[in-house]
Amino acid sequence: MKSILRIFLYFAQFTLTLLTETPKIMRPLILISNDDGYQSRGLAALIEAVRELGDVFVVAPDGPRSGASCSIVSDVPISYRHIRSEEGVKVYACSGTPCLCVKMALDQMMMRRPDLVVAGINHGNNASINVHYSGTTAVATEAALCGIPAVAFSLDNHDPEADVERLIPICNHITRRVLEHGLPYGSYLNVNFPDSEIFQGIRVCRMAYSRWVDEFEPCPRSRGGHYFWLTGEQVDDEPNDTTTDLWAMRHDYVAITPIMVDPTDHNLVQQMQQWDL
Amino acid sequence: MKSILRIFLYFAQFTLTLLTETPKIMRPLILISNDDGYQSRGLAALIEAVRELGDVFVVAPDGPRSGASCSIVSDVPISYRHIRSEEGVKVYACSGTPCLCVKMALDQMMMRRPDLVVAGINHGNNASINVHYSGTTAVATEAALCGIPAVAFSLDNHDPEADVERLIPICNHITRRVLEHGLPYGSYLNVNFPDSEIFQGIRVCRMAYSRWVDEFEPCPRSRGGHYFWLTGEQVDDEPNDTTTDLWAMRHDYVAITPIMVDPTDHNLVQQMQQWDL
Repeated sequence: MKSILRIFLYFAQFTLTLLTETPKIMRPLILISNDDGYQSRGLAALIEAVRELGDVFVVAPDGPRSGASCSIVSDVPISYRHIRSEEGVKVYACSGTPCLCVKMALDQMMMRRPDLVVAGINHGNNASINVHYSGTTAVATEAALCGIPAVAFSLDNHDPEADVERLIPICNHITRRVLEHGLPYGSYLNVNFPDSEIFQGIRVCRMAYSRWVDEFEPCPRSRGGHYFWLTGEQVDDEPNDTTTDLWAMRHDYVAITPIMVDPTDHNLVQQMQQWDL
Repeated sequence: MKSILRIFLYFAQFTLTLLTETPKIMRPLILISNDDGYQSRGLAALIEAVRELGDVFVVAPDGPRSGASCSIVSDVPISYRHIRSEEGVKVYACSGTPCLCVKMALDQMMMRRPDLVVAGINHGNNASINVHYSGTTAVATEAALCGIPAVAFSLDNHDPEADVERLIPICNHITRRVLEHGLPYGSYLNVNFPDSEIFQGIRVCRMAYSRWVDEFEPCPRSRGGHYFWLTGEQVDDEPNDTTTDLWAMRHDYVAITPIMVDPTDHNLVQQMQQWDL
C-alpha cells in the first residue's frame, strides 16, 4: 500500500512539475542582431518589442557595420564579450560582421538553437535592391540558411536618434504572427517602415527593381589620383507598380517583402537545357 | 555638277566608313572583376578566355577581398589607378570591394555600358550557399541588378597557384553561349569548376542547401577573452539529390547555377494574404 502511495505521489509530483515548468520550457528562444551595433536605439527598441514573446539573446556587432552584406571578412581573430544581463535578456557584443555575429551565436554561444532570429531595427531602409547590401538582412539570410525563421526590421530614416520606439507594437505584432504561422524553410521577412507619422497598414510586397545613381562624389586631391566618396540616390525603376515594397513605403504602408535564400532561377535552368553546352 | 559629285563622294565615303568600322563598333564590351585582386592568376586566365570575344575592361580590387559578399563598406575615399593597357585590354585596380569595383567602373570609368560582366576565375568554390558570401558572385549580382548579363567563374581549389589556364577554353565556350543567348533581366550564371583532372561535362543545376560546421577555431589568449579564427567545413545537406551544384561538382561536372537577383518568395507573398496582419 505504501509503495502504491509512493508511486501515486511520484506521478502527482511529475504532473505538477510538467504543468508548472512547461510554459518556461516552451518559451521561445529569440536571437537578435543588427548592423548598427549593440548600442543602437533600434536594437534597444527591438529587444523591447520581442522580450515578452520569449527569452532574448543578443549578439550584435561592437560598432557600426552598415552595408556589410553577408561579408565574412576578418583578418584577425573574432571575439565576443558580455555586455549585460537582465530578466530574460542577455546582451553580447561581437567584433565580427553581422553574419559572423549570427554564426558565433549559433556555433559557440547559445545553449540551444533559437526558435527565431530578428534583426534591426535598422536606421535606414533596406527595401528593394538594398536587400543585397544590408547587414541587417544579412542577419536574416544567415538564419534562414540554417532553416531558422527570421525577420529583418528597418526604418526609412538614417538618423541614429530617429523615433524607433513607436515601432515597438508593430514589431511585436509581426513577430507574433511569425511565431504563430512559421515560415517556409529558407525564407525570411524583410520588413521596412516608411518614415511617416501614420501608417496606412501593412502590405506584403515583392522587391522593387531600383537603381542607385550618382554613386560617387569626387574627392579631389592636389597630388592627383582618382578619389571618390560613396554617395548616391535610389531611383525606383517601377514607380507605378502597386505590388512593390517601394510603392508601399511611398504610400505610407509598412512593407513586408518575403525573401528566399535559394536564389536559383529555375525557369532558366529549364531554358538552358536547350543551350548547346 | 561639281556639288553633285561632292555629295556622291561624301556618301560613298560614309558607306565605306560604315562597312569598315561597324565590326569594330559592334565588338562587345566586356567588364571583368573578381575578389582575389588584379594580380591573381584566375583573373589573367579569364582575360585570356574572353579577349577574343570583345574589348576587355578590367576593374579589380587592389588586393584580396574574398568573402566580401555585396559589401559596400568603405570609411575612406575609394580610388582607382591604371595598371596597364594592351591591344583590346585595359586593366585598373580599385581600392573598394568587388561590388564597388563594378559600381566605379559603370559610374565613373567606362565610356559606355558593357554588354557583359564576367567575374573570376575565383580561387575557391562559390557553389551552394557560398553564393551569399562570395565577392566573385557579388560582381555578377551588381551587374545583374543593372540588367547586364553576367557570369561568375570559380574553381574548387583555394591555392593561388592552382592550374586555372586549363579552364580558359571552357570559360570561352560558356561566355560565347551567354553572348549568343543572352540572359533574362536580373539573372546571372554561377559557374563552378570541380578540382578534377577531367570534366564529365557541363550541368545546369540548382543551388544545394549546405551548412558550414565547426566554423570557429579557438584562439586562446592568456589574458582571457573569447577569441576565434574563422574556419569550418561545408557539408552538403542533400548529398543524393542529382539536380544540385554540389552533386555535379562531386561527380566531376562543371556546375552552372542560374541565379536571380530578385529573391522575392512569391508563394509566401500569396500565403501571407491569409495572415491576420
